[in-house]
Amino acid sequence: MIQKGAEIKEAKGRLGVLVPGMGAVGTTLMAGVEMIRKGYSKPYGSLTQMGTIRLGKRTEDKTPLIKEFLPLADLNDIIFGGWDIYEDNAYEAALTAGVLTKEDINKVKPFLESIKPMKAVFDKNYVKNLDGPNKKSGKNKMDLAEQLMEDMSKFKNENHLDRVVLVWCGSTEIFLEYNPVWETVSSFERGLETNHEAISSSMIYAYAAIKSGIPYANGAPHMCNDIPALIELAKENEVAIAGKDFKTGQTLMKTVIAPGLKSRMLGVKGWFSTNILGNRDGLVLDEPLSFRSKEVTKSSALEWIFQPDKYPELYGNLYHKVRINYYPPIGDNKEAWDNIDIFGWLGYTMQIKIDFQCRDSILAAPVALDLALFMDLAQRAGMKGVQEWLSFYFKSPMYAPEVYPEHDIFIQLMKLKNTLRYLKGEELITHLGLEYYD
Amino acid sequence: MIQKGAEIKEAKGRLGVLVPGMGAVGTTLMAGVEMIRKGYSKPYGSLTQMGTIRLGKRTEDKTPLIKEFLPLADLNDIIFGGWDIYEDNAYEAALTAGVLTKEDINKVKPFLESIKPMKAVFDKNYVKNLDGPNKKSGKNKMDLAEQLMEDMSKFKNENHLDRVVLVWCGSTEIFLEYNPVWETVSSFERGLETNHEAISSSMIYAYAAIKSGIPYANGAPHMCNDIPALIELAKENEVAIAGKDFKTGQTLMKTVIAPGLKSRMLGVKGWFSTNILGNRDGLVLDEPLSFRSKEVTKSSALEWIFQPDKYPELYGNLYHKVRINYYPPIGDNKEAWDNIDIFGWLGYTMQIKIDFQCRDSILAAPVALDLALFMDLAQRAGMKGVQEWLSFYFKSPMYAPEVYPEHDIFIQLMKLKNTLRYLKGEELITHLGLEYYD
Amino acid sequence: MIQKGAEIKEAKGRLGVLVPGMGAVGTTLMAGVEMIRKGYSKPYGSLTQMGTIRLGKRTEDKTPLIKEFLPLADLNDIIFGGWDIYEDNAYEAALTAGVLTKEDINKVKPFLESIKPMKAVFDKNYVKNLDGPNKKSGKNKMDLAEQLMEDMSKFKNENHLDRVVLVWCGSTEIFLEYNPVWETVSSFERGLETNHEAISSSMIYAYAAIKSGIPYANGAPHMCNDIPALIELAKENEVAIAGKDFKTGQTLMKTVIAPGLKSRMLGVKGWFSTNILGNRDGLVLDEPLSFRSKEVTKSSALEWIFQPDKYPELYGNLYHKVRINYYPPIGDNKEAWDNIDIFGWLGYTMQIKIDFQCRDSILAAPVALDLALFMDLAQRAGMKGVQEWLSFYFKSPMYAPEVYPEHDIFIQLMKLKNTLRYLKGEELITHLGLEYYD
Amino acid sequence: MIQKGAEIKEAKGRLGVLVPGMGAVGTTLMAGVEMIRKGYSKPYGSLTQMGTIRLGKRTEDKTPLIKEFLPLADLNDIIFGGWDIYEDNAYEAALTAGVLTKEDINKVKPFLESIKPMKAVFDKNYVKNLDGPNKKSGKNKMDLAEQLMEDMSKFKNENHLDRVVLVWCGSTEIFLEYNPVWETVSSFERGLETNHEAISSSMIYAYAAIKSGIPYANGAPHMCNDIPALIELAKENEVAIAGKDFKTGQTLMKTVIAPGLKSRMLGVKGWFSTNILGNRDGLVLDEPLSFRSKEVTKSSALEWIFQPDKYPELYGNLYHKVRINYYPPIGDNKEAWDNIDIFGWLGYTMQIKIDFQCRDSILAAPVALDLALFMDLAQRAGMKGVQEWLSFYFKSPMYAPEVYPEHDIFIQLMKLKNTLRYLKGEELITHLGLEYYD
Repeated sequence: MIQKGAEIKEAKGRLGVLVPGMGAVGTTLMAGVEMIRKGYSKPYGSLTQMGTIRLGKRTEDKTPLIKEFLPLADLNDIIFGGWDIYEDNAYEAALTAGVLTKEDINKVKPFLESIKPMKAVFDKNYVKNLDGPNKKSGKNKMDLAEQLMEDMSKFKNENHLDRVVLVWCGSTEIFLEYNPVWETVSSFERGLETNHEAISSSMIYAYAAIKSGIPYANGAPHMCNDIPALIELAKENEVAIAGKDFKTGQTLMKTVIAPGLKSRMLGVKGWFSTNILGNRDGLVLDEPLSFRSKEVTKSSALEWIFQPDKYPELYGNLYHKVRINYYPPIGDNKEAWDNIDIFGWLGYTMQIKIDFQCRDSILAAPVALDLALFMDLAQRAGMKGVQEWLSFYFKSPMYAPEVYPEHDIFIQLMKLKNTLRYLKGEELITHLGLEYYD
Repeated sequence: MIQKGAEIKEAKGRLGVLVPGMGAVGTTLMAGVEMIRKGYSKPYGSLTQMGTIRLGKRTEDKTPLIKEFLPLADLNDIIFGGWDIYEDNAYEAALTAGVLTKEDINKVKPFLESIKPMKAVFDKNYVKNLDGPNKKSGKNKMDLAEQLMEDMSKFKNENHLDRVVLVWCGSTEIFLEYNPVWETVSSFERGLETNHEAISSSMIYAYAAIKSGIPYANGAPHMCNDIPALIELAKENEVAIAGKDFKTGQTLMKTVIAPGLKSRMLGVKGWFSTNILGNRDGLVLDEPLSFRSKEVTKSSALEWIFQPDKYPELYGNLYHKVRINYYPPIGDNKEAWDNIDIFGWLGYTMQIKIDFQCRDSILAAPVALDLALFMDLAQRAGMKGVQEWLSFYFKSPMYAPEVYPEHDIFIQLMKLKNTLRYLKGEELITHLGLEYYD
Repeated sequence: MIQKGAEIKEAKGRLGVLVPGMGAVGTTLMAGVEMIRKGYSKPYGSLTQMGTIRLGKRTEDKTPLIKEFLPLADLNDIIFGGWDIYEDNAYEAALTAGVLTKEDINKVKPFLESIKPMKAVFDKNYVKNLDGPNKKSGKNKMDLAEQLMEDMSKFKNENHLDRVVLVWCGSTEIFLEYNPVWETVSSFERGLETNHEAISSSMIYAYAAIKSGIPYANGAPHMCNDIPALIELAKENEVAIAGKDFKTGQTLMKTVIAPGLKSRMLGVKGWFSTNILGNRDGLVLDEPLSFRSKEVTKSSALEWIFQPDKYPELYGNLYHKVRINYYPPIGDNKEAWDNIDIFGWLGYTMQIKIDFQCRDSILAAPVALDLALFMDLAQRAGMKGVQEWLSFYFKSPMYAPEVYPEHDIFIQLMKLKNTLRYLKGEELITHLGLEYYD
Repeated sequence: MIQKGAEIKEAKGRLGVLVPGMGAVGTTLMAGVEMIRKGYSKPYGSLTQMGTIRLGKRTEDKTPLIKEFLPLADLNDIIFGGWDIYEDNAYEAALTAGVLTKEDINKVKPFLESIKPMKAVFDKNYVKNLDGPNKKSGKNKMDLAEQLMEDMSKFKNENHLDRVVLVWCGSTEIFLEYNPVWETVSSFERGLETNHEAISSSMIYAYAAIKSGIPYANGAPHMCNDIPALIELAKENEVAIAGKDFKTGQTLMKTVIAPGLKSRMLGVKGWFSTNILGNRDGLVLDEPLSFRSKEVTKSSALEWIFQPDKYPELYGNLYHKVRINYYPPIGDNKEAWDNIDIFGWLGYTMQIKIDFQCRDSILAAPVALDLALFMDLAQRAGMKGVQEWLSFYFKSPMYAPEVYPEHDIFIQLMKLKNTLRYLKGEELITHLGLEYYD
């Protein structure tokens, strides 16, 4: 375990941020960071950029910005790159995605045009509703991994980068059952060489990154760097990894509301969640096997928060149903409608209806940014393997085998901020505060 | 400041719970506790009864029930009493309130019939839309206070009680501007003797309780035990006090949602809250001066949570509007509809609509129970004056002059639970958890 | 075509109302009619009982009750019977259905206990999620039809009835593709004898009724009396038939809202409809083939109302999606949530969200009652074959081959009321009303 | 009464459309008509432009466009003008209103810039929250009226117009109690000369128009051309008049939903309507006396539709409450939230929640256009005085003293379309349709 207040390497030089998948999220991230650098907008939605951290007592009024408290990479030092199955540069891809207005995109047109996707590792067997021309070929999956490592190395050299991180911003792959090939580094590497079908494209990216000493965060719900082989590899190579599935939209709201209901010991009989979304993400999730990946990450949050084993009378009979519907008329404007059937004193029932008219990529982009910056920080602080303190950003956070995952967003935030305080040798916050009385 | 793990007196003997105002909340509390004692229901909604508290590390799996962790009074040791302006006993009052079904009320009919209201201290100038026959008269407000002290003493003796607590469950009084008569114990006592108009009926109850060494919690939004004179008196007499305004319904949801939005640095441009309710509470709040009391407590929560001084770009221009509408068709079934206008990455806007179809008294009754039990605990633990650690239960929590109030329900819960851990000498929880990683 | 003001036979003697399927709708109908007869409630929701009809000019103020304007059967003259696969009498079945409170059901307990289901014609191949013990067996489908005819005849004689009508209140059968066996009476009768698999159980009921000269209305969405063979048989035997699928809940709202949008030439880009329901109906519809039957009737209403062929710019690209979800926590309390994406002047978009928290059987029961009474009226008025004027009650109304169906509920109501005026020789209403000006 | 199929004068030459109030609605109308003329958009939302009318039987499939069926003025023949208290031309005013995007407004910039407001008749006593510099002054109200008549005459001559109509698109004036000065033309004219305080600015416009033989339609909720004096003047001068208050947003939905509930004899216990809006209209309505005007027109619709005198058990106890809240964050995007408490069979309760996220001026502009065109048609057809057949467009339609107003939008549409059929000598539609059955 890392020492309290141990030294963290400075964030000197430039940081490369590579995204597999230059679609809605990836291009919104790139365009946004450039717009912020140019002063067109503030970095709304980003904890690393706008968040503060309270130090000491409430009476001290000491709450620096997080980015001033810790040595995070500066936005001006970020260089973007990525892979995609389409040949569109980031400008064209952003227009296609339709997240940002044309007016906004044009403000950073030359910058976006300069980002051209590298050829992707892609196999339609893992993402059935998509395909495109800009793909690598290789004699086997190990060959493809090596090509990716070559891409990363070249990207780093050509751009004179000090460090690189990878954040998966691509599509959801299909759900895969546990396979023994995932068990160890050696079984996995044999699998790469024999083109094992349980090794998906995203796993090849994760392998290539970790092998290259590059931190890897997974923003999609499929199995990837959370398989034993890659966790082992990350520890061996002393690389930070995190995942999975950016926590945005409905699940974000769930991990806010559920802890609130539980705080008051209000029982929950049923929770029905439906989503309508019309972008490429919706199209991909219209395919049952891809939806299965999503369903798994979306469903587990409630169970972990409510702890039905500890509160069987309150949450033991919860009927939880999640539906995702492809609905083109609203484009990237995702809408989540939840009906929650709760009960309180003497079992009397009440209902909560939540209609969240959100924008998927607008919520995801600052998450991707924060992860890039915090993963880079973790790497410089010598934190290797699973970064549980970044659970805050994920629908299905990775965690050590001996514990359970924390899904409650407020516990996650406490964990994140106390980790930052710990890294800097500050006192941890407990909110006790009895000292002001008497 | 109390010592960590200092001794807490045992909860031996019987605890009297006195409620000024035997209306919807008071009778739902009484009927409910008896139903739970008889085994008709579980104590849903009550943290003291169903809540657990995690001790030590996640791997230890040590999470006792709160009521087993600390010496709380047992439900079987509670004796109820109260005051009301109507002569109805608790059975008749419960039927009138219409919160519980007749079928449920009848299950504990003899018990409820045995609880007859004492004559109330009441002055229509402070609650304009109500009046009733069961009232005390006296030569001045000090005389009324003495009559109440006599009531409390008699109630304690006749019922062979070890301890008593008071929880205000009566109507909302009108908003009063700050008055110098509230400044010190002596100015207040002079005011009682001269019938000062800035001393409302509820303040007379609070004075009588604190003077008698009885803890007092205020469940309504008007000024009461939070005036300097009564805080001073509570410290002098070493009495625990808390308030104000039970956090239920819309504000409960607000203090859940707002911290969630803030955790992600999502900006908020507008928050429109409308309520419809059809019970006596709605009738009282239809009167502008009473609504003003409510408006003040309901409005401040967002401002304290969002900290617009620290986050001016995110929350500096928040337009917050709260409306309460008397709407008889739904009776005690309160409905709160909120529209929240938020913005994220690059200022793109999103909306959240929440429709909370709740039951006011069902949410309030377990809060009143928990407060009775925790106030009694605090008194036995030697905690005097303002109990900030009970902020969790209030729309507008009391706090020490040198700090600011905590409205974030998750910080409030953390504060409450870490206070309990501290009282028992247990290690405080910080959610750091780095020890599981290497 | 029937003559304006032609004679209608009097409603003398008793009317038998037979329902295949004594579940939620059937028992709510029976219990309700008896409660109304006993004076426990008014016939809310029933046009035949509470509706009025305006005659002549607005200035004449002549608006008799429909039931006084025309010779409808009196509620006191109705005798109920039915078939079901469970042996429960109507009292037990009503308790199981859980639509009405136990208190209400007990008010008419002896009456309900007296209604015992006849053995049903049932084949699990057509309703996959249900089964029960109370079923007929026979050497072939014709044999089963003859047993049903025997049941009807016996029911009429034993109860000394003047007339009988059948209203299908049973479960939804699976969707069947068009089959030539449905083409003519003779092909259909051959099919009955050879146990043709395209002849479902409900068709056997319809055949038996029409063959016996008994009007038949279909309250479920599957194909039944709307196949050519049975329409032909109804004409030959001079029997009134109607269908299909009681218009309740979401579709009811759709046929209200859609005409409203169209009246103002507001375009519609998308309409997303989700339903959650927890009763047996929900369980049956959880089966894809049964859902297919429902989907067909639920989807067509919008298309017919919006006439995309006439208004291609407004409705030509409407994306309409209907989802039904089995969600046990809410029982018979069905909830329908709709999101409607509309556009107006210059293409600017707007949205309507509708949350209809309804009760399925409460909406269906008065529809079943009205259909029984109006079908009986039609039969006495000599109206044979398809009763298009009853479209008002159906999600997917039957209509003559040379026209198109009317789904707009206001056109349907106009059609119904002008038909009643026509039958009685009154002037039809056009709402012109220029005579009051000048 | 006008003769069926009587001759209608041709719509030759140019039609002047004058709007008092060049704010959000007025400029959206002007910009929109020009955009449609230029081919940038279709005339969505306009019945005169996109609506069809069925003639003859359903089998004939004869449904011409309304604008081809009757001699309406062509959009290309419309010339706009107006008055306003601000000096901004229509381009500047449209930008300020913020209804249309800057991109759209710029498409017709030169056209809008050419429309400059004439000096308005305005008195802050009638619209308390507004004021501006571009106002007429005169020795008394008659003098102001004469100045307006001079404006109209000049506008007609300078633009070589054949005909002119006025459509009030200005702000809501305060509620005025009935005053005898409104009784006759002569009392009203005396009032103009003596500056009677019961004669508001809008009445001066109406008087000036009618006196000039120009049809006048009132789009706001205040009393204006519906006072006896002006109705009398309209008859004398053979001028068509109509009003009042454009039916848009929440009331539009109410007059759609309420007839739907009533069609099925579903009872209504309560209807709570809240509105949030952030434009100038919202600011004006934040003033209690202006809100009173609105409240009156918004409240009456339900009562007229539900006919509680005819259906006391269903609608006799309806509790109807309407709230309007100024909420700047959403600008011109008005949002209406309704909660409707209904009951059906045996009195069982259900609820409907409707959230209408609309755009006020987008809904109003095509209404203003249709009224201009239909008022011009009426004038050419010789229809003088109150045009009840245009009730379809108003929240509070004007009607003859011997009848009652029709608020049901479907009856209103039937009335409108059958009036058009009547004018052209076509058979009126009754939706009987028995001829297709035998």
